[in-house]
Amino acid sequence: MRVIGLLGLGVIGRALAENLARQGCRVRGFDPSPEARARASAEGIKVSADLADLVQGLAPPRAVLLLVPAGRDVDAAIEALLPGLTAGDLVVDCGNSHWRDTERRSAAMAGRGLGYLGVGISGGEAGARDGPAIMAGGSAEGWTRVGPLLTAAAARFDDEPCCAWLGPGGAGHFTKMVHNGIEYAVMQLIAETFDLAVHGLGLEHDEAADLFERFGHGALGSYLIDITAEVLRLVDEPSGEPFVELINDAAEQKGTGNWASVEALEQGVPATLLMEAVAARSLSARKAAREALRREPEPGPAKGEVHAADLEAALLAGTLVAYAQGFELLATAGATHGWPLDLARVARLWRAGCIIRAKLLSPIAKALERLPEGVPLLADALLAERLEAALPGLRAALLAAAERGVPTPCLAAALAWLDAHRVARLPTRLIQAQRDHFGRHGFARIDRPGRHHLPRAEEAGP
Amino acid sequence: MRVIGLLGLGVIGRALAENLARQGCRVRGFDPSPEARARASAEGIKVSADLADLVQGLAPPRAVLLLVPAGRDVDAAIEALLPGLTAGDLVVDCGNSHWRDTERRSAAMAGRGLGYLGVGISGGEAGARDGPAIMAGGSAEGWTRVGPLLTAAAARFDDEPCCAWLGPGGAGHFTKMVHNGIEYAVMQLIAETFDLAVHGLGLEHDEAADLFERFGHGALGSYLIDITAEVLRLVDEPSGEPFVELINDAAEQKGTGNWASVEALEQGVPATLLMEAVAARSLSARKAAREALRREPEPGPAKGEVHAADLEAALLAGTLVAYAQGFELLATAGATHGWPLDLARVARLWRAGCIIRAKLLSPIAKALERLPEGVPLLADALLAERLEAALPGLRAALLAAAERGVPTPCLAAALAWLDAHRVARLPTRLIQAQRDHFGRHGFARIDRPGRHHLPRAEEAGP
Repeated sequence: MRVIGLLGLGVIGRALAENLARQGCRVRGFDPSPEARARASAEGIKVSADLADLVQGLAPPRAVLLLVPAGRDVDAAIEALLPGLTAGDLVVDCGNSHWRDTERRSAAMAGRGLGYLGVGISGGEAGARDGPAIMAGGSAEGWTRVGPLLTAAAARFDDEPCCAWLGPGGAGHFTKMVHNGIEYAVMQLIAETFDLAVHGLGLEHDEAADLFERFGHGALGSYLIDITAEVLRLVDEPSGEPFVELINDAAEQKGTGNWASVEALEQGVPATLLMEAVAARSLSARKAAREALRREPEPGPAKGEVHAADLEAALLAGTLVAYAQGFELLATAGATHGWPLDLARVARLWRAGCIIRAKLLSPIAKALERLPEGVPLLADALLAERLEAALPGLRAALLAAAERGVPTPCLAAALAWLDAHRVARLPTRLIQAQRDHFGRHGFARIDRPGRHHLPRAEEAGP
Repeated sequence: MRVIGLLGLGVIGRALAENLARQGCRVRGFDPSPEARARASAEGIKVSADLADLVQGLAPPRAVLLLVPAGRDVDAAIEALLPGLTAGDLVVDCGNSHWRDTERRSAAMAGRGLGYLGVGISGGEAGARDGPAIMAGGSAEGWTRVGPLLTAAAARFDDEPCCAWLGPGGAGHFTKMVHNGIEYAVMQLIAETFDLAVHGLGLEHDEAADLFERFGHGALGSYLIDITAEVLRLVDEPSGEPFVELINDAAEQKGTGNWASVEALEQGVPATLLMEAVAARSLSARKAAREALRREPEPGPAKGEVHAADLEAALLAGTLVAYAQGFELLATAGATHGWPLDLARVARLWRAGCIIRAKLLSPIAKALERLPEGVPLLADALLAERLEAALPGLRAALLAAAERGVPTPCLAAALAWLDAHRVARLPTRLIQAQRDHFGRHGFARIDRPGRHHLPRAEEAGP
């Protein structure tokens, strides 16, 4: 196999190099940081002294993987590579780039006769080393060159690699962005469920860990549930405190969840859990506002009883809605951008290697295989049946939360989203009336075609 | 007074022309549409036959108001005007332009020695004619020229004009965008309250109209509440049906609410009601998805009793949160962009003329005058007291909604936002733990400085 170039030898870069070497690939790496180079060298990675040496050490047509932070670093890396590249070479951005940047770079590279791929890789350091989920987009020809190697390096589920080329341009990075949006929502749902386990069920941390461990054996089984149980069991050695209680609750974020929410707004997709999850992190970090509005919790009336099974049902319903919103965003964006996104393939490749890997993705993948295009995920009979069974638990959990003052933005958004789809008529008809009243915007009627206006008030009222 | 130019003679343009003429200003108008010109002419507006004639008819330094649809039309209008303008002339965009476009145009015009103002005008047709609320931004020098005229044309509240220059560049259009974001949220809150009045209290339309009319005499008194009562009383003459029932519930939107939500995401402001309101409109219009997921409403258990006073309290609490989120967005954006936004002045100028004019804006303005910079609106003692009194009603309304399957995305988001600020600790500490577990992102601790990581699981658990 040819030598492949790897620009960026940080934690993920080195882990991926180790993985690629295991697939029999000869990797040659470079990083502007001498420390990163030394560390990679010590781990047995062949390291170039400078970028020119890296590029010259590769025989054309070259393939260079980028593992550098998203944003200007990627543009700088491409700029630095360009003088050494020749027509037919391929650059593969394996970072968390914004899909619009990937579209722009892809077009610019094509104009120079160079191939470009934007590849989303999920699974963190362990995934990169042992088998991540890989969402590729960009030059189909380029994919024929590095696809087999990345496929070999990816996680597998039921012998199917968790790796696919999903479309041209930014299709891969878009899909990874939606993956991260779902990840934000599911993490927030788990956090809310933990809060309810403490303040609704009165559990101690080890009991909450047991609860999530039990959830992990059921339909909710997933990597994020597993690590939740693990994290809740951690104890701070010197103090003996549950470790999670010592962590500052100002949640941080790197932007992909935000991008997914902005994208949902721009596509007109009501991906409310993705947005609420991003907002919940932002709110948690605005400490001054929180301090100014803090109150002692009110004593909750006792009537809103809640049980462990309700919390499990609530988390299941919420997680199903989070996935449904993510796939709705993918479907809509795929249509808008003309990407041939195979949603069932996306669901299958998320079954292993990535952060949101979960048992639920198997029935979700099957549903997406069965459903005609344009039909929402939760219209699938099997998923609808599970959801129906979980709905009373979601309602009970929200009643308990509202009475006790436990903030549950994502669980509440899930119920609102579901109920808004369930009812035959929404009160938005009143909004249409108001808009016509103050802005003469007009509206459609249900009983005849055309645009209409309100009757003048003085003619209509008594 | 000099002659002022008016490009764009649509509904709002003509109404504003009438208003300006009443202030003693001589207006000369033009519109590319012969119909609009004819109509304006018939209404007594002096109309030019072409754009060159309009510009030549004004003595330098000229002032031309644009009343054209936001987007490319504004750029096209400026392009068309440019050949006739000379240094010192002033262009005033009175449309709903995106504030970033206004910043760009403002800089480009300044580069040509021309003045530029971006002016948000709220109040619809009636407002434009009888006195709108006016939020101006851009060239301070330009404002000295048209400010007095627009101030005279604006609505007044307690003898203070509802018109102000708020800062350079896009400050005026940004403020108008936030106004519209709040407008979306309040309209959705009213729609949800109407839904609960029907499905929770069992009211008929005329009873619901009475209810909103009663609300209008209390703390909730506002233009939107008034027109809600008015609209709910309308009857479709031939059928005798309540008129609002004949309106298609697919809500439409023109984009400013969406812009405000995107801006909130980009500024890291958890303006969840603004986002949920936009999503609720989008969801309502996605008829295929709604049809696919529609269910007969479940029979609601009777235990969640709800009263008219609860609905009033819920709507009051929700509205206060919508305003708080809007002002938080303004405060954050003002700091980011270096605009000298006077939030109390903004609140005062929204008290009359605009769509969100409401009694609540008087105590809100007073609170913003009293509060030190950076302190959130609802930390004000008087508003906090009202909120505290309304909170049990909001909880009761949400319990009733959850049990009955009435979708209440904005009311639920309001409670989640409030409770997230009220509790001492958020479960986002668990999210920080998860992020470190899978991504080595690190976290802050509450008991010591620095960045920290989880203990390795094998060292910590039993």
